[in-house]
Amino acid sequence: MTSPVIAVVGGGQLARMMAPAAAELGVHLRVLVESPGTSAAQVVTDAPVGAASEEATIRALIAPPAGQARADVLTFEHEHVPNALLTDLIEHGTPVRPGPHALVAAQDKIVMRTRLGELGVPCPRWRTLPSTVDGGRAALTEFLAEVGGEAVVKLARGGYDGKGVRVVSGADQADDWLVAATEGGPPVLVEEKVPFRRELSALVARRPSGEVRTWPVVESIQRDGVCSEVIAPAPGLSDDVAAQAREIATAVAEGLDVTGVLAVELFEVPADPDGPTTVLVNELAMRPHNSGHWTIDGSVTSQFEQHLRAVLDLPLGSTDPVAPWTVMVNVLGSERESLTDALPELLARFDTARVNLYGKDIRPGRKLGHVNVSGADLDEVRAAARGAAALLMGDDDGRAASTGSREESAAPVVGPVETKESAL
Amino acid sequence: MTSPVIAVVGGGQLARMMAPAAAELGVHLRVLVESPGTSAAQVVTDAPVGAASEEATIRALIAPPAGQARADVLTFEHEHVPNALLTDLIEHGTPVRPGPHALVAAQDKIVMRTRLGELGVPCPRWRTLPSTVDGGRAALTEFLAEVGGEAVVKLARGGYDGKGVRVVSGADQADDWLVAATEGGPPVLVEEKVPFRRELSALVARRPSGEVRTWPVVESIQRDGVCSEVIAPAPGLSDDVAAQAREIATAVAEGLDVTGVLAVELFEVPADPDGPTTVLVNELAMRPHNSGHWTIDGSVTSQFEQHLRAVLDLPLGSTDPVAPWTVMVNVLGSERESLTDALPELLARFDTARVNLYGKDIRPGRKLGHVNVSGADLDEVRAAARGAAALLMGDDDGRAASTGSREESAAPVVGPVETKESAL
Ligand SMILES: Nc1ncnc2c1ncn2[C@@H]1O[C@H](COP(=O)(O)OP(=O)(O)OP(=O)(O)O)[C@@H](O)[C@H]1O
Ligand SMILES: Nc1ncnc2c1ncn2[C@@H]1O[C@H](COP(=O)(O)OP(=O)(O)OP(=O)(O)O)[C@@H](O)[C@H]1O
Ligand SMILES: [Mg+2]
Ligand SMILES: [Mg+2]
Repeated sequence: MTSPVIAVVGGGQLARMMAPAAAELGVHLRVLVESPGTSAAQVVTDAPVGAASEEATIRALIAPPAGQARADVLTFEHEHVPNALLTDLIEHGTPVRPGPHALVAAQDKIVMRTRLGELGVPCPRWRTLPSTVDGGRAALTEFLAEVGGEAVVKLARGGYDGKGVRVVSGADQADDWLVAATEGGPPVLVEEKVPFRRELSALVARRPSGEVRTWPVVESIQRDGVCSEVIAPAPGLSDDVAAQAREIATAVAEGLDVTGVLAVELFEVPADPDGPTTVLVNELAMRPHNSGHWTIDGSVTSQFEQHLRAVLDLPLGSTDPVAPWTVMVNVLGSERESLTDALPELLARFDTARVNLYGKDIRPGRKLGHVNVSGADLDEVRAAARGAAALLMGDDDGRAASTGSREESAAPVVGPVETKESAL
Repeated sequence: MTSPVIAVVGGGQLARMMAPAAAELGVHLRVLVESPGTSAAQVVTDAPVGAASEEATIRALIAPPAGQARADVLTFEHEHVPNALLTDLIEHGTPVRPGPHALVAAQDKIVMRTRLGELGVPCPRWRTLPSTVDGGRAALTEFLAEVGGEAVVKLARGGYDGKGVRVVSGADQADDWLVAATEGGPPVLVEEKVPFRRELSALVARRPSGEVRTWPVVESIQRDGVCSEVIAPAPGLSDDVAAQAREIATAVAEGLDVTGVLAVELFEVPADPDGPTTVLVNELAMRPHNSGHWTIDGSVTSQFEQHLRAVLDLPLGSTDPVAPWTVMVNVLGSERESLTDALPELLARFDTARVNLYGKDIRPGRKLGHVNVSGADLDEVRAAARGAAALLMGDDDGRAASTGSREESAAPVVGPVETKESAL
């Protein structure tokens, strides 16, 4: 049987979670991994080792010297890839999905804000800071006055999990980044600090032929700048705001010509839950995203399978949920020697828990796995997902299962933004 | 992270479908494959090549010479393994699950019938035929008279997919098998030809600590002696008969000390749907089974994950269905060059179809994959699953989707048994 071949750059958990979907569809995955034994290398038989930045490595990933089948398409599990090479590959006949013209809007927050503005998509107020200390300070002073004393400064490139995001209240608080920018570091932008009610995520997939499918909009809860929990669908979200979020995701996917899965991170505003709510776009990820891990167990088609279908330009699958609620809780670091040590107690206590471990070495705060639980009672589902994840993190008394309740997370948020600083 | 290691004998689709479950649980699979590139070898990174009958090969599978981690347990995707070796492995400290004392009841239909009888489990009337032509004929004549003219003769060992099963009406119709038996071939048994209403399957998992979980009882439809379709749960099955079937499966798992997944194939009798119904056991499979493929998409815990949990003596997962109905249709052979050629049309027409392809070369009648569809309307679900499977088989006008309706399959069955002969 001749299978389609998909080349994937990046050997982490996102590539790993593509493997089951590829196996089911009869698709051959070839994953470029950073080193032997990475998360994806453990479960993908064709996993050459190399650096994503090396041209020869990427070319060999597509057309292996040993004569294995040529890849039909190149895709990514992260956005850190050299775009000039991608453009060249496309010119020489290899489809790259998403393409570099789309990817740049996920790689650079200034490009992103500019493009979203052009598309008429609602965003926080923002401004690029000039890349000099004096010019940057002056612009920041002005912006702070305009938005009322506090703002969020971000590195345009290279940030992830809140690294590269900082709340400031004085014009000198971004000096280090401004200095770095003068020395070839990433440009810096500033945004109003959005008084959001909560964070949402709208996940969408689009294929080259144009077909687009969105999943139900979810609530995503960050802790210390890192996604810790996702509730699908977002509880109490009005049909109106949900439709708006799905429309925005579709508009962005179409407007930027995205192919594959796109996650649009959103702020639901205003913080006051009594007023009429709307959404602003925070940022974009052009790949399967942490806010979509719930789809593995909670939706007819997972984001991983959908991504593979989309980049092969195959028809997309149903995004219907399979249960009223699915909650995903991340395993962020662990006190344990080995996560699998938690399984006897975890599986006994939570018999509906869908455990997904990424095979990574344990490090503090690191994304090591997640747990999905689906069901009809949100409180029960959430308690089970949190309890199971807490056990994996080595939190045997279930502390994590009882903190950060919905009520807390739904309160007008200062916390999530301010904790950024501790993450830097 | 140190992962549990499970060694699996057999590189077909059953081992292949264990791979996603193993990846999610953070379990390392080591699969003994018959040759490079088999179904499982395509998706399992640790897949040594060798023959299941060779002692050195099995020992190396458990304790690889290159110093990789020792397997924590040995399990199987088929029952064709030398039991003396297994007994020796156990004596030297390697858990073998299911154990040889249980396995033999799935390997040998005479042992199976004898043990089931001892457990008081309802079976068809049966008898071992003496392994001489004269003695066999005499016993068969007597049995045919007893049951009324027709009976089913079976080889005790080595049969699968209906090969080794034959309907007879005359005492000389098993001569070839009787001759073979005198020459070292498998012994022969005869059973009454059960006038069944339909075939059911009760799937159960049991772990060494004793925990047992059963899935909803399904209807399984055979064509030419091969499973072609499974409906979960069995439509219109009375609570009473369903409970009986689940109890039988539990009793067999406990009575034979089975560990891992056990499929109990059942006949629902009598054919007349108006009378009170009951079940008889046809046969046993001690491994994930075709009648349980629906659980991949239709149950909280799939049979593959459950098997891995069971053989590691981990707590078992919920066997609740995730939808009112799930229908599985097998892809048996194909007119196509490549199954993936069917995907554009299939995925466009059936957006809830869960396609699972096994990566096997196409041969007439061969199990090449399956399609699951879940939903609330049985007729729709079934039409979609059949339509999708028909496209994979290259049946573009959807013929397979319109034949073999429930009504036909529910009719008093002679067909399924008589078609056996053509399969031989
Ligand atoms: N303008 C803003 N107003 C308020 N909070 C913000 C703003 N921008 C970012 N945040 C907070 O910081 C978090 C991280 O910001 P952002 O998503 O831009 O950073 P990142 O490092 O790219 O993170 P990711 O891991 O999602 O890629 C957001 O999820 C949100 O909680
Ligand atoms: N005693 C019987 N009376 C009526 N039909 C029978 C009987 N035994 C077997 N059959 C029919 O033949 C089919 C195959 O029989 P059996 O399961 O014993 O064979 P097998 O070759 O071991 O098949 P499998 O592929 O399930 O292992 C059954 O599913 C049933 O349709
Ligand atoms: Mg973000
Ligand atoms: Mg059978």
